[in-house]
Amino acid sequence: MHQFPTFKDILKAHELIKNVIHNTPVLQSSNINQILGCELFFKCENFQKVGAFKFRGASNAVANLTAEELKNGVATHSSGNHAAALALAAKNKNAKAYIVMPENAPVVKKNAVKSYGAEIIFCKPTLEARETTLEEIVEKTNATFIHPYNNFQVICGQGTATVEFLEKIPALDFLITPVGGGGLLSGSAIAAKAINPEIKVFAAEPKGADDAFRSFISKQLLPSVFPKTIADGLLTSLSDLTFNIILNHVDKILTVDEESIIHAMFLVWERMKIIIEPSSAVPLAAVIENAALFQNKKVGIIISGGNIDLKKLPF
Amino acid sequence: MHQFPTFKDILKAHELIKNVIHNTPVLQSSNINQILGCELFFKCENFQKVGAFKFRGASNAVANLTAEELKNGVATHSSGNHAAALALAAKNKNAKAYIVMPENAPVVKKNAVKSYGAEIIFCKPTLEARETTLEEIVEKTNATFIHPYNNFQVICGQGTATVEFLEKIPALDFLITPVGGGGLLSGSAIAAKAINPEIKVFAAEPKGADDAFRSFISKQLLPSVFPKTIADGLLTSLSDLTFNIILNHVDKILTVDEESIIHAMFLVWERMKIIIEPSSAVPLAAVIENAALFQNKKVGIIISGGNIDLKKLPF
Repeated sequence: MHQFPTFKDILKAHELIKNVIHNTPVLQSSNINQILGCELFFKCENFQKVGAFKFRGASNAVANLTAEELKNGVATHSSGNHAAALALAAKNKNAKAYIVMPENAPVVKKNAVKSYGAEIIFCKPTLEARETTLEEIVEKTNATFIHPYNNFQVICGQGTATVEFLEKIPALDFLITPVGGGGLLSGSAIAAKAINPEIKVFAAEPKGADDAFRSFISKQLLPSVFPKTIADGLLTSLSDLTFNIILNHVDKILTVDEESIIHAMFLVWERMKIIIEPSSAVPLAAVIENAALFQNKKVGIIISGGNIDLKKLPF
Repeated sequence: MHQFPTFKDILKAHELIKNVIHNTPVLQSSNINQILGCELFFKCENFQKVGAFKFRGASNAVANLTAEELKNGVATHSSGNHAAALALAAKNKNAKAYIVMPENAPVVKKNAVKSYGAEIIFCKPTLEARETTLEEIVEKTNATFIHPYNNFQVICGQGTATVEFLEKIPALDFLITPVGGGGLLSGSAIAAKAINPEIKVFAAEPKGADDAFRSFISKQLLPSVFPKTIADGLLTSLSDLTFNIILNHVDKILTVDEESIIHAMFLVWERMKIIIEPSSAVPLAAVIENAALFQNKKVGIIISGGNIDLKKLPF
């Protein structure tokens, strides 16, 4: 039986991490508003430290460890933003971080993790290899495993973005986040519904990795088998914890095509002059594909991150 | 004999346009600061309307026209940001805008100008064809010509970015802007020196289009003959008016290599997650090439714009 985070837990997390995170700006584009016929607000976690919201969750998880739990460092497996986030969160507490990464991870991601002083352990690029390698590392080092989303304090940390968002823009009709493992969506939904029970919380997911959509509809946890999408941050499947929170707090999950994701990403780059990663374009893609649903509404979107290989763009 | 803008003129311009322009944010990157050993502040005119500081000057020029002067619209020749800026500034005053553009201008720029309702007149891609075509248009329509930088009110408008910048960050040791025709540099230098006589005002220019550097050193106006640089906003040469202001108010002009421009641009995209055009990377390139000069100093850079063809990146 899980313990679910409450809004109070999220506020406690915010109190704990607010001095190490950026209170990221909320941007608007009159141009995109005009195109889509609604008023969009973008909470820009691409400007967060390590370039992604993940730093919130990792910082809160590390901040909640006892001295004993932190003594031998922290460990995780990730080739993405959680890896860099945990590396920096550990460094800020003078703790070691062990990051298990697939050997074929992009060089730019390896360098980011290294630059925060973490120790990288390479493994074959399979989920099994990742998990086995992580187990070995934890056994050898006694480091504390921080799961990227199936973790109470990580979810609380991710929810803090919505606390800041609704503080700045209280009158949102909709809040939309992308959904991969569900950490951001879970924390956001708990916070948003507590602050404003009238707000609609939607998730946006690529059709090629639609486990959250299928799980939400069927009310059964149905992980992705061969997920495939340009939104590389959304390849993961919901966990037990995030699935249960999402079932209880989220209103709807919209799935989108790959073309819409690329189009939405291009639109934000071109009109807003900010760099967002493909995963972050998924909510805007959902608004584009379902424009009628959002006509004349105030729609909040969390831009999850801005980490992308600038030398391999999809357009 | 020219009349030179004073700080008072710039403050008047700011009063006049502040409700139609964005007071753009000032961003920092702890990462880039660490790499370069100084404290950098970026005034982000890439987030300005039409994606460039040019909207300030165009708006101020249009706002200062009499009803008589505005009656038949405004005209200019430009394939760049001034074209879009003047088009929008005219639209905001319900006036017509005639924009002479070379027929080979990028489609994205043609579309931007069209989207603001301006009438585009195409010409051969030579300076002579541009000027002749513009003369014909002015004769035919009686529109008022708004020069992109050899214009008192345009320079005053460009100076308003520095008013906002130094209001937010008063203790800058250096202010660096790119220099093409010199409108931004002129307005910035007048404003900066009036607000803080101790501040050093530097310009940064590509070696491949170094007319401002050569003119500044020799104290003679020496236009570029065959300028060539990736910084497409800086191909123009100083005018009489801007040259004289720059001689009197600027401390130094630094020239930079093309490789440094591309490197600086990449650095900003990757670390700051914002899109800047090559011309805007020139000041940072100058800091990179002359790092010792700026050690431990507070350095303000005006990011002039963010308009770049995302499908043709130099990296």
